[in-house]
Amino acid sequence: MLTATGRLLLEEGLPAVTFDRVAREAGSSKVTLYKWWPSPGALAAEAYFARSARVLTFPDTGDLRADLVTQLTAFVRLMTHEGAAAPVSQLVGAAQTDPHVARAWAEGYAQPRRELARERLRAAQRQGQLRADADLDIVVDHLWGACYHRLLVLRVPFDEALVPRLVDQALRGAAPQG
Amino acid sequence: MLTATGRLLLEEGLPAVTFDRVAREAGSSKVTLYKWWPSPGALAAEAYFARSARVLTFPDTGDLRADLVTQLTAFVRLMTHEGAAAPVSQLVGAAQTDPHVARAWAEGYAQPRRELARERLRAAQRQGQLRADADLDIVVDHLWGACYHRLLVLRVPFDEALVPRLVDQALRGAAPQG
Repeated sequence: MLTATGRLLLEEGLPAVTFDRVAREAGSSKVTLYKWWPSPGALAAEAYFARSARVLTFPDTGDLRADLVTQLTAFVRLMTHEGAAAPVSQLVGAAQTDPHVARAWAEGYAQPRRELARERLRAAQRQGQLRADADLDIVVDHLWGACYHRLLVLRVPFDEALVPRLVDQALRGAAPQG
Repeated sequence: MLTATGRLLLEEGLPAVTFDRVAREAGSSKVTLYKWWPSPGALAAEAYFARSARVLTFPDTGDLRADLVTQLTAFVRLMTHEGAAAPVSQLVGAAQTDPHVARAWAEGYAQPRRELARERLRAAQRQGQLRADADLDIVVDHLWGACYHRLLVLRVPFDEALVPRLVDQALRGAAPQG
């Protein structure tokens, strides 16, 4: 059911994710869907988490900068080349007015993804690749939040060329050193 | 009309902003509203820009860090203490599916606000308070984008205590210096 939902979401967008349609595509019953998910939006958020999990893995080669560039490039490509920009925008958009989608998106996708990012950042901090007093949640805001800012708020195009500059500026800062 | 719309938006949220209601509150005619704005969402975005402009002025005392803390604190307080979080979320949410709101929000609010931020950052860059190779649009993403990230995507509470840490990490970076 998650696979069918993920495909529908990426190919046709959030409006296509109805319990009727998913039941038909997945060969399951609507009763089962109602039993497991409070709303189609909740199902869509979980399906997007499942669908994107493999692509959005956090590598750990020991080189934080390289690993962040790898992961964020995959994230940006998912948006720009694999059609996730529209369904993600629709999910976050719906989350602003629909409490079911809000909870599903935040608790089923955004916050768990942040925890995965924190894990990788904590490992880097232990190895001295991030300052001991660096705020890891702010690093998350600075990297992935910047992409969402352009996607949702500014609504300007961006591509993977942004990624190395975004990572370098998050790590080195914008002010002169010293 | 902008004043009446701004009040409605902040007190009752985006659904209250209809041409009927604004015409009644402002003592104007719906014909006039239709002549000037393509949709209530467009009117709401412009009213929010007008309403927030005075509060969100960029000071220039010559000290970039202090000025950014002042401006971002005003921005965060507007969200958390003056009721802007809900209407802003609703506007950005609607922008994801309604092309009229999308254009009004991005072109009538978010992108003009970014240009105002850039002006202040360019002055700081000329004075050597930002590196010559710092990307000013990324600074904007790192500061205001981080707040929107928590508001819209993560949907976690935040307050003005976040601001100095956000500014310092954007300026100094998260990695050890040197």
